[in-house]
Amino acid sequence: MKSVAILGSTGSIGTQTLDVIRENKDINVTALSAGSNIKLLEEQVREFKPKLVAIYCSKSANEFRFNTRDLDVEVSTGMEGLVQVASATDTSLLVTAIVGMIGIVPTIEAIKAGKDIALANKETLVTAGHIIMPLAREKNVNIIPVDSEHSAIFQALQGTFYNVSKSSFNTDNPLSKILLTASGGPFLGKTVEELTSVSVEDALKHPNWVMGQKITIDSSTMVNKGLEVIEARWLFDLPVDKIQVVIQPKSIIHSMVEFVDGAIIAQLGAPDMKQPIQYALYYPNRRYLPGERLDFSKIKEITFEKPDMETFKGLMLAYEAGKVGGTLPTVYNAANELAVKLFLDKKIGYLQIGEIINESMKAHTVKSDPTIEEILDAEAWTYDFIDAALR
Amino acid sequence: MKSVAILGSTGSIGTQTLDVIRENKDINVTALSAGSNIKLLEEQVREFKPKLVAIYCSKSANEFRFNTRDLDVEVSTGMEGLVQVASATDTSLLVTAIVGMIGIVPTIEAIKAGKDIALANKETLVTAGHIIMPLAREKNVNIIPVDSEHSAIFQALQGTFYNVSKSSFNTDNPLSKILLTASGGPFLGKTVEELTSVSVEDALKHPNWVMGQKITIDSSTMVNKGLEVIEARWLFDLPVDKIQVVIQPKSIIHSMVEFVDGAIIAQLGAPDMKQPIQYALYYPNRRYLPGERLDFSKIKEITFEKPDMETFKGLMLAYEAGKVGGTLPTVYNAANELAVKLFLDKKIGYLQIGEIINESMKAHTVKSDPTIEEILDAEAWTYDFIDAALR
Repeated sequence: MKSVAILGSTGSIGTQTLDVIRENKDINVTALSAGSNIKLLEEQVREFKPKLVAIYCSKSANEFRFNTRDLDVEVSTGMEGLVQVASATDTSLLVTAIVGMIGIVPTIEAIKAGKDIALANKETLVTAGHIIMPLAREKNVNIIPVDSEHSAIFQALQGTFYNVSKSSFNTDNPLSKILLTASGGPFLGKTVEELTSVSVEDALKHPNWVMGQKITIDSSTMVNKGLEVIEARWLFDLPVDKIQVVIQPKSIIHSMVEFVDGAIIAQLGAPDMKQPIQYALYYPNRRYLPGERLDFSKIKEITFEKPDMETFKGLMLAYEAGKVGGTLPTVYNAANELAVKLFLDKKIGYLQIGEIINESMKAHTVKSDPTIEEILDAEAWTYDFIDAALR
Repeated sequence: MKSVAILGSTGSIGTQTLDVIRENKDINVTALSAGSNIKLLEEQVREFKPKLVAIYCSKSANEFRFNTRDLDVEVSTGMEGLVQVASATDTSLLVTAIVGMIGIVPTIEAIKAGKDIALANKETLVTAGHIIMPLAREKNVNIIPVDSEHSAIFQALQGTFYNVSKSSFNTDNPLSKILLTASGGPFLGKTVEELTSVSVEDALKHPNWVMGQKITIDSSTMVNKGLEVIEARWLFDLPVDKIQVVIQPKSIIHSMVEFVDGAIIAQLGAPDMKQPIQYALYYPNRRYLPGERLDFSKIKEITFEKPDMETFKGLMLAYEAGKVGGTLPTVYNAANELAVKLFLDKKIGYLQIGEIINESMKAHTVKSDPTIEEILDAEAWTYDFIDAALR
């Protein structure tokens, strides 16, 4: 029986991971973590019976301990708690469904402890790919992407020299290009002028996927796609200029790879995160998953467009951050994280998100090949910089 | 160095196979065969220096012997010649690019001799799949499809439990469906009335692929797709009702597979037969192939339709032949072969092709699990039946 721990079990990916585990009934849940949603976490603990949980907020942890005093479950807190969940001895696979740079350190500790990683935390590779990927290779750990696009690429690469257990290609790389598909978000085709007055409510309407708030905003600005470009650069060991974003509004093709012989392999499906989640949980096996199937006689057409990088500056800036590397992707990510928060709090306008990222990147002095500490310093620098700039 | 023999080296697939070999310069050509185009065969022999050639027609063989008396090449004739080429001791891979049921016996002999098969002859599996596939498994021989659709399916299945060396799935089959794409041919959307007056010249215009005459007509009637359905049934071990034809006029997606988890893997590419040919020659490796690449900003859209099986009866009849099995697919194929010949000779009208196939299938008494001899008898019966019916 497989043993799985989940960082971020109360979020969108976390709950869907538990849905898949519930359906399959042959995975043992060893540990869960949540930020502060202790009500849902308690339900999960009562159902899946992990021996360990981590609750980031100490106050919530105390309340949780009281509420679950009838249960035999260890409750830890803070970063220490996340690391405990990530590296629990009886776990074979860690699902990193936690959002934000807070996922980096626990992921590293899990890899050091030899756990395979089902990676749903974008920030880990965006900011620390140069540390994570060599470490995974050294520890012979699988990094299995959960994001629908990266899972699509990963699925498309199976059987073609891609040696997952080394997280690398084991001979001459036959991959010439990644075609990362994008829905284009709710504002596809809009001009800068039209975007000036976008409200929080407008930006939270994604055409195809139901997701968390931050990722929905990121999808509308195409920063989400930018983060995915940088993430793909590390996962699949290609420079960012070989990763091409293709707008495909219906999100039917989840991504494609082009090989040196011109053949393209694509992965397609209904927009259901349970597919990549289940694939990551049982990799390399596939098993039955109930749900919608694509019906091409109903789909009728799939259309393609080039991304408009002038209007959606967030994507263009990601290429720049990915090309320069070092601490710049961290600044890109941190500036976006804070800017989205400020936008959701209605403290800044929609277009200021891109401006804040741009200004932060311009003001930053890049440190190449940064340590984790230097990455966290760059994050702190970014927050300080934005804070000062907006004062 | 790989050693390759080619049955049908002067045809469309045969010459393109030699183009790929010429480009790569690391394949030894051991034997070639041709029907009667001895001029082209001589050029090929002078360039690729095989030790053995087979020329089906004895008269042409004598002329060829005289023309190449300065060369050290053995020339054999008839079926015996084809079998010699197919089973030459120094060959590791046989490309069966020969057209028609004439390819069956040499292919069987090649498998018995342990050669891997790059299969471009449709009739082999359509009429004798029940003999070929178990034999390939027994002899541990790879059957690598060259047809663009079947190569697409084969490429899409790599790394997902498909064990090519056993030509079968090695655990629970995770494949739930094959989506065999079809351009729909030049008469897509036409009604039966509009097809009544189709001329040979009209039917020879294929929208996407440049191919031989017979296959171009077969593509226009959708009999080609019907043969592919039956072929896929054997190659990928799925009943015909799990093989769905999807019309996709631009032939950008070469075919798709759907897995039990709802994920679809597709292979796409420019319409260039060199890709599947090179893939078959170097399988499981991919190497650089010059040529056109798909550009999604130019493609703009891929459209899908359901096939019109009422108008294109050839496809519907293939499902019937595939479901019933036995000698019925042989009758389907032989009736079509003769009907297309009669149409190209302007002896029958376009719609009579489908009628002749239908009448032949209705009149035939099916023999299940036929031997090669019974298959050839069914072919002869079909020719006699049509001959008598048209007299």
